[in-house]
Amino acid sequence: MNDKIRYGGDYNPEQWPKEVWDDDHRLFTRAGVDTLTVGVFSWSLTQPAQDSYDFAVLDAILDRAAAEGRRVCLATGTAALPPWAARAHPEVNRTDFEGRRHRYGQRHNFCPSSPAYRRLATALAGRVAERYAAHPALLAWHINNEYGGACYCDLCADAFRAWLRDTYGDLDALNDAWCTTFWSHRYTDFAEIEPPSALTEHWRGPDHTAFQGLTLDYLRFTTDALLGCFRAEKDAIRRHDQETPVTTNFMGMYRPLDYHRWAPHLDFASWDSYPPLDAPPTWAALAHDLMRGLKDGSPFWLMEQTPSTTACRDVNPLRRPGELRLATFQAVAHGADAALYFQLRASRGACEKYHGAVIGHAGRDDTRVFNEVAAIGEELQRLGSATLGARTPARTALVFDWDSWWALETSDGPSRYVRYQDTVHAYYRAAREAGADVDVVAQTADLTPYDVVLAPLLHLVKGDLATRLEAVAARGGTVLTTFLSGRVDAYGRAFLADVPGPLGDLMGVRVDEWDSRPPDVVQPVLLGESSTSARLVFEIVLPRGAEPVATYGADFYAGTPAVTRHPYGERGGEGWYVATALDQPGVDGVVRRVLARHGLLGRYAGTPAVETAHRTAPDGTRLLFLLNHGRETARLTAHRGATDLLTGEHVEEGAPFTLGPYGVAVLRLQ
Amino acid sequence: MNDKIRYGGDYNPEQWPKEVWDDDHRLFTRAGVDTLTVGVFSWSLTQPAQDSYDFAVLDAILDRAAAEGRRVCLATGTAALPPWAARAHPEVNRTDFEGRRHRYGQRHNFCPSSPAYRRLATALAGRVAERYAAHPALLAWHINNEYGGACYCDLCADAFRAWLRDTYGDLDALNDAWCTTFWSHRYTDFAEIEPPSALTEHWRGPDHTAFQGLTLDYLRFTTDALLGCFRAEKDAIRRHDQETPVTTNFMGMYRPLDYHRWAPHLDFASWDSYPPLDAPPTWAALAHDLMRGLKDGSPFWLMEQTPSTTACRDVNPLRRPGELRLATFQAVAHGADAALYFQLRASRGACEKYHGAVIGHAGRDDTRVFNEVAAIGEELQRLGSATLGARTPARTALVFDWDSWWALETSDGPSRYVRYQDTVHAYYRAAREAGADVDVVAQTADLTPYDVVLAPLLHLVKGDLATRLEAVAARGGTVLTTFLSGRVDAYGRAFLADVPGPLGDLMGVRVDEWDSRPPDVVQPVLLGESSTSARLVFEIVLPRGAEPVATYGADFYAGTPAVTRHPYGERGGEGWYVATALDQPGVDGVVRRVLARHGLLGRYAGTPAVETAHRTAPDGTRLLFLLNHGRETARLTAHRGATDLLTGEHVEEGAPFTLGPYGVAVLRLQ
Amino acid sequence: MNDKIRYGGDYNPEQWPKEVWDDDHRLFTRAGVDTLTVGVFSWSLTQPAQDSYDFAVLDAILDRAAAEGRRVCLATGTAALPPWAARAHPEVNRTDFEGRRHRYGQRHNFCPSSPAYRRLATALAGRVAERYAAHPALLAWHINNEYGGACYCDLCADAFRAWLRDTYGDLDALNDAWCTTFWSHRYTDFAEIEPPSALTEHWRGPDHTAFQGLTLDYLRFTTDALLGCFRAEKDAIRRHDQETPVTTNFMGMYRPLDYHRWAPHLDFASWDSYPPLDAPPTWAALAHDLMRGLKDGSPFWLMEQTPSTTACRDVNPLRRPGELRLATFQAVAHGADAALYFQLRASRGACEKYHGAVIGHAGRDDTRVFNEVAAIGEELQRLGSATLGARTPARTALVFDWDSWWALETSDGPSRYVRYQDTVHAYYRAAREAGADVDVVAQTADLTPYDVVLAPLLHLVKGDLATRLEAVAARGGTVLTTFLSGRVDAYGRAFLADVPGPLGDLMGVRVDEWDSRPPDVVQPVLLGESSTSARLVFEIVLPRGAEPVATYGADFYAGTPAVTRHPYGERGGEGWYVATALDQPGVDGVVRRVLARHGLLGRYAGTPAVETAHRTAPDGTRLLFLLNHGRETARLTAHRGATDLLTGEHVEEGAPFTLGPYGVAVLRLQ
Repeated sequence: MNDKIRYGGDYNPEQWPKEVWDDDHRLFTRAGVDTLTVGVFSWSLTQPAQDSYDFAVLDAILDRAAAEGRRVCLATGTAALPPWAARAHPEVNRTDFEGRRHRYGQRHNFCPSSPAYRRLATALAGRVAERYAAHPALLAWHINNEYGGACYCDLCADAFRAWLRDTYGDLDALNDAWCTTFWSHRYTDFAEIEPPSALTEHWRGPDHTAFQGLTLDYLRFTTDALLGCFRAEKDAIRRHDQETPVTTNFMGMYRPLDYHRWAPHLDFASWDSYPPLDAPPTWAALAHDLMRGLKDGSPFWLMEQTPSTTACRDVNPLRRPGELRLATFQAVAHGADAALYFQLRASRGACEKYHGAVIGHAGRDDTRVFNEVAAIGEELQRLGSATLGARTPARTALVFDWDSWWALETSDGPSRYVRYQDTVHAYYRAAREAGADVDVVAQTADLTPYDVVLAPLLHLVKGDLATRLEAVAARGGTVLTTFLSGRVDAYGRAFLADVPGPLGDLMGVRVDEWDSRPPDVVQPVLLGESSTSARLVFEIVLPRGAEPVATYGADFYAGTPAVTRHPYGERGGEGWYVATALDQPGVDGVVRRVLARHGLLGRYAGTPAVETAHRTAPDGTRLLFLLNHGRETARLTAHRGATDLLTGEHVEEGAPFTLGPYGVAVLRLQ
Repeated sequence: MNDKIRYGGDYNPEQWPKEVWDDDHRLFTRAGVDTLTVGVFSWSLTQPAQDSYDFAVLDAILDRAAAEGRRVCLATGTAALPPWAARAHPEVNRTDFEGRRHRYGQRHNFCPSSPAYRRLATALAGRVAERYAAHPALLAWHINNEYGGACYCDLCADAFRAWLRDTYGDLDALNDAWCTTFWSHRYTDFAEIEPPSALTEHWRGPDHTAFQGLTLDYLRFTTDALLGCFRAEKDAIRRHDQETPVTTNFMGMYRPLDYHRWAPHLDFASWDSYPPLDAPPTWAALAHDLMRGLKDGSPFWLMEQTPSTTACRDVNPLRRPGELRLATFQAVAHGADAALYFQLRASRGACEKYHGAVIGHAGRDDTRVFNEVAAIGEELQRLGSATLGARTPARTALVFDWDSWWALETSDGPSRYVRYQDTVHAYYRAAREAGADVDVVAQTADLTPYDVVLAPLLHLVKGDLATRLEAVAARGGTVLTTFLSGRVDAYGRAFLADVPGPLGDLMGVRVDEWDSRPPDVVQPVLLGESSTSARLVFEIVLPRGAEPVATYGADFYAGTPAVTRHPYGERGGEGWYVATALDQPGVDGVVRRVLARHGLLGRYAGTPAVETAHRTAPDGTRLLFLLNHGRETARLTAHRGATDLLTGEHVEEGAPFTLGPYGVAVLRLQ
Repeated sequence: MNDKIRYGGDYNPEQWPKEVWDDDHRLFTRAGVDTLTVGVFSWSLTQPAQDSYDFAVLDAILDRAAAEGRRVCLATGTAALPPWAARAHPEVNRTDFEGRRHRYGQRHNFCPSSPAYRRLATALAGRVAERYAAHPALLAWHINNEYGGACYCDLCADAFRAWLRDTYGDLDALNDAWCTTFWSHRYTDFAEIEPPSALTEHWRGPDHTAFQGLTLDYLRFTTDALLGCFRAEKDAIRRHDQETPVTTNFMGMYRPLDYHRWAPHLDFASWDSYPPLDAPPTWAALAHDLMRGLKDGSPFWLMEQTPSTTACRDVNPLRRPGELRLATFQAVAHGADAALYFQLRASRGACEKYHGAVIGHAGRDDTRVFNEVAAIGEELQRLGSATLGARTPARTALVFDWDSWWALETSDGPSRYVRYQDTVHAYYRAAREAGADVDVVAQTADLTPYDVVLAPLLHLVKGDLATRLEAVAARGGTVLTTFLSGRVDAYGRAFLADVPGPLGDLMGVRVDEWDSRPPDVVQPVLLGESSTSARLVFEIVLPRGAEPVATYGADFYAGTPAVTRHPYGERGGEGWYVATALDQPGVDGVVRRVLARHGLLGRYAGTPAVETAHRTAPDGTRLLFLLNHGRETARLTAHRGATDLLTGEHVEEGAPFTLGPYGVAVLRLQ
């Protein structure tokens, strides 16, 4: 599909008179933009009434793109209802968690179970596909946009009941799975089951539910219901176009949808990267690796990032000079073969008018931001196809599991302050800053390629995972898990066994009780010679074969193990258990010990500001990305002869070289 | 009913296969468990459809209990609707404060005014009573469970109007009571009156109302409406069983329900103790004494406490070794003659699965928690009947008044930061840490037994209370009240008199104005030689016979009285007025002066970590409980010869003895 | 209308028996009270049923007032519905932002678009006017009360659509104005348009909207809808009384209503002053000047202030001795010719019972507050007519613009922490503390009288404002604006030009990008020799003719301009641009430089605690108010001979004189 990394972004020329389009293309050429995402929110324009389509504007956009030699990622345009649809079919509007049927407004505003929406959306997708399947500008299909949210209407309730019937077969199985003897909930008819909302099982919002099983299943149902919308549109496209790849843009670590359930249905993954304010660089990296993992390590698209600022947050900082370039090459280092912006030209009105854009309201090409964008465009041109189709040669896997995320964060006890993303990120960060390439994989992934498997907060364990983790250790690998892992089965029911349940044999520990303290209470932890600290949850570990790696330093469990290692099998494998929420230095210490066992500490592990990422091109060429996230120049030594593909410069093995603040090098290793 | 302190807890074997029941009873025996609370949430099991009852499981549970020699506190099971009822009668579901009719979910989910619920619940209670009235295991009836919440549906609106008609007779009286000339609210028809909610008189939630009178009455109505449910079930039971005592489990200081209105209708009081995170031990003690006061000092049941952790809080700490024992004997010291847990075996699923239990998910009897539970079981066995039927010989009373709580916290001005429980607890704590036994009594209680009456934040004064307080002082006693007392009548209307209204004569002060400052503003207060501090509200006191005990140290009222004492009557009585929210040391200082006047300072008042509680057994034996809440060993001197009933050890008068950290002694005094 | 400053307040004798009225008038006489606001919430009394009016109580109140020689500000009484109206016409109750139709409760509870409400309210106003138009006590008409809030019902939706049709003519214009190509919002029928609410375009409350244009227009519509209610009542009055002046009481800086749209329809302005807790004195002063600006500088009424405390806040401090007098004379200094209290006698019940009053619940005349009120009454008597009809000779204008307030605070990006009032107040405060008299004016005001125009956060620029600002500079004046100004047009659309849009030529700068940081991040700013600081938003300024006045001291834009000045025109005019949210000292420094250019620094600018305010009486007499807001005595030098009208004392030019803590002088200058 590509001969270089695709470069461009969201483009909405329907908002502007035609003379602006001329400016746009002139500036696109200057910036090296070759790819335009088109039509994402044009439903009301393309179909101004239920029985009328008007392709004039889309025709003009695509034709002009083709004429300029640019390619289009074409949206089906179904992510925001047109006003007439909401009025003609009130049930297409969502009913929210509070039970309120919404009226027309915003976007992502459709009920996934509404037959009217399904019919209208697939009809539109089909019509668009029919018209543009053979268009020379067409590069990829972009179905809908940032699927998300949930609906709690009666149509969804019915669809949920049907989903439950399919899943459980009969009510006995469901009653058993959800433990409905609790609080007199034994159902005698599927019709008695209500979606879990503020009007039924929830209080204090989506995280507090009386029945985890019900809530878990509604999250799965919602995932599947929206996926059903996607699949229906894809089917409609495939009736006219068998070949052009189809995607929809994800949002990285987005809790409401289990993207692992979606992955098989995408032709390639794509996502929109908007890291939280002041997130460390590993936050975006984790999301990149999660997205790469969706399609077994195949490249993905960075479908959106801002060239300068967001607008939707309370505080929207500006990307400093160099930050955009660094973020862009970080995406490539993790597997992106497209780097697109939201947005190419700033919207004049509505809520995104202050969202950053390649071209601002004044239409200038002499702004700092435009200059940086154009310079990146040149570098991508220079890089050509060198990175395309490459793969990450990771020997470390991190298990990322939506079920565990959901089960953990919707459970009462022991601590509402334990957040899945924070803990998972801490382990990912430790591994990445130590120089390990990491694959982020599902519970169901093949684990045979890995020497190290990190499975923090693996709260819910399903299928044969425990067996496969044991197999990793049996092969000599190391498996690490943490507090609050191995607690519940696929239905959110506690394992009737010592904690950590099915992971107990591998970990060689037993946990009978766990303390929890407010976030301001810090517990010292002794890790070898050094002292670190822990918070929130403190499990009390009884070793059953494991030996202590670190111990608690205070309270009545002072001296008992906070971290353990358990030799497993004949080939030097180990199970590591971290019984508390260590602060980052503690996690770093533990993870580095684990990586060191397998020779996986990177050469630049002593310079954690410099991110390293290896890629292996289809022809076997080995690439090493060096990304200096620090504001200081990094002084390094080449551990191998290499050529920087961005500058053409060569460095000899053992020679010193430097990487400026926010500096990037893409080394072809010898 | 007992020959020892009953021991056991909530038991839901319907959640488990029968083989687990064998384990349960084996472990119960090991732990000394003799009492099981059964059937609390089994409605959907016992009545799987509107016209069908199935007692097979309850039969088996009770028969097995009887066979094992255990007794059952049998629930009517009406606290959580079965799904079929919610579907067949949507109006049984509550309508919340926001005006939203709920659908099926959670528990405590029934509308108290719904005829369908009333009919179904009383039918169930009757059927259960009919079946088990004569069962040998039956020990007590447990109606519903933790009554609470409120409903705002049209049925409740109608019931409220009928309640108002009963209460006021006509609209003129109601209009006068509620001051409806304010804001054009004069009602001309009862049908115009709406329940006070987010859709009517309230903003920012339940504490902010335009009409305190209306809100007060709805709180009273809700109390009575739920009490009506209780009484209907009790009537249904009594048709089959005239003798077995009936209770329902309260929740201590639970604002929504005025338990003093309920007390006459219970055969004995019982409650569930879950003190807030890091609450001082006097918090639970205050609730114990409040519960004991419900039935004029008769023993109560501790119906629930956790053996280890809660689950429903943001942070759920573990009870440290010894804490459970300490809490259990604290309950006994305050009048409990049953000590029950929630729960005996941990639930496998749903929102309480991580709530602590005597038996965890692994079914072990070698956990720390199980061992502690079993050790307590042994001690209770050893204690036998020594404490049963005892009474607390208190000469200090604390007035606890739901009406004042409601009136204060639903009023605008002067400070939303003044919280009834906090202030009342501060005075209770001061008295208890000074060694005074305290009865916690209603406004309407007989005050003649007391030398000291503490009435902090007595915002609403009704009936002849002022006269009875004056009588205390006239007899030589001391009455203490505080800022924001004596402000409103039974309808929440300001007294048309100098503040503190009907308490003015006794207090000998007049208050024309009051300052309020944010919580971070601290006002120094000079109390005798020492300096203490105050916050939130600063009343400016004009003495009218009273003399200053403490004075403000700053602001324009520097030098004016912050605390006063007023000689009253011929026999040395006094009225003390505390015009500001003193910090705890200030409250301690004032209360100790008051107690000292009457020789009520305890022998161990210098060791506030050691709680003392006296009890007088029916045969006149005097018991002294010593409870060391500190983490340090307490070194004490016996002020009387005594025998520790837990150890059998004897200590001579004047001899030193120690109480270890969290240590407990139950001394039979000579 | 007056021969002295009117003095009195809200008076609700309908809440009391007649014998209390005697006390009231006796105390009024003692306190110098000559004016009573009557009937504000008496609808349910005056019209006890749909077809029945009863004027007996109002008759008695007015007759008694007349007999006592007092005058009445008579309310139409339509601000709170009577219960019967809410029941008979459920649609008169509002539907809130969450889409919930309210039931009867509170006040300000009517739907402005409801024909039933309109009919009932105007009928009542007409009946009241008919009866009292010729009453000797009648002084002014007070329509409704504190208009505010909004409704989102279907009647309002229809009225909004009609308003839009009137405003835009056709949908093409509306679609263009709101930029509805964004998010597929192109409307094809007015019926598709929904009010912007939690059910449509908003999330996280009223400030977060997908479509600023829609939200802006609904704010304008709501302003006009409530104004329509006012005008209809005024028309009803005018049918019976052509002469008595009509007002309604405003609330100063009240975001929901654009009072500039109301101003032409009032005969005089009036407002209720309840400054926020611990607000500096310039906060109330700004509101006074805003209110004075509504009627082109004519005097206004201070319709309400508390004599002691509010009740509705979380914390309700007491006005310290002297504070009430200071606030009262501050109002007069800014143009009030009436000083009224809420309330004369404290309500017995409901939510305002703890709101301060001249006469408290005990009915005393020997309280501190009563004494202060009476002393002020004497001073106002002494002042007589000296201040009546005076005007403020301001040469500095501050532009206050509801459209900018709305547009800024309902926009996403760059920072939700920028609040319009805070920034506008900072500039006003700087000017006032530097001694400048300030007129607070609308965007549309005539700017020719001013040498200095301060226009902070002028986010939305409409009409010919830019031209008129340029004219100020062309005449030699100085115009100052700030970051986030000149961003959007009247529809909330970004100007397609360099920032600051139409203000760019005057300011001589261009802004391409802007950084935002959390509130705890402080950026040093170098202003001449001194260093100050800035927060929240940091625009990066490219001078285009302007020269730097201050520069950023850190981050990648260190050394670039934070404040600029731009010579404009031939007569020494300048445009000043402040690119960041300077802290108060920085704003002070900038504003004092600007004022100094025009000789507008006050004589007492070095004593910022002493507020100065000049007034010119109709006969040309010049008055100087000196208000010492400090707790220390101020030692000043007379810069001109003068007589203090409150004391009769004379001070010679150049002579020293002092102003005690909270001291006030009203100097007639020679």
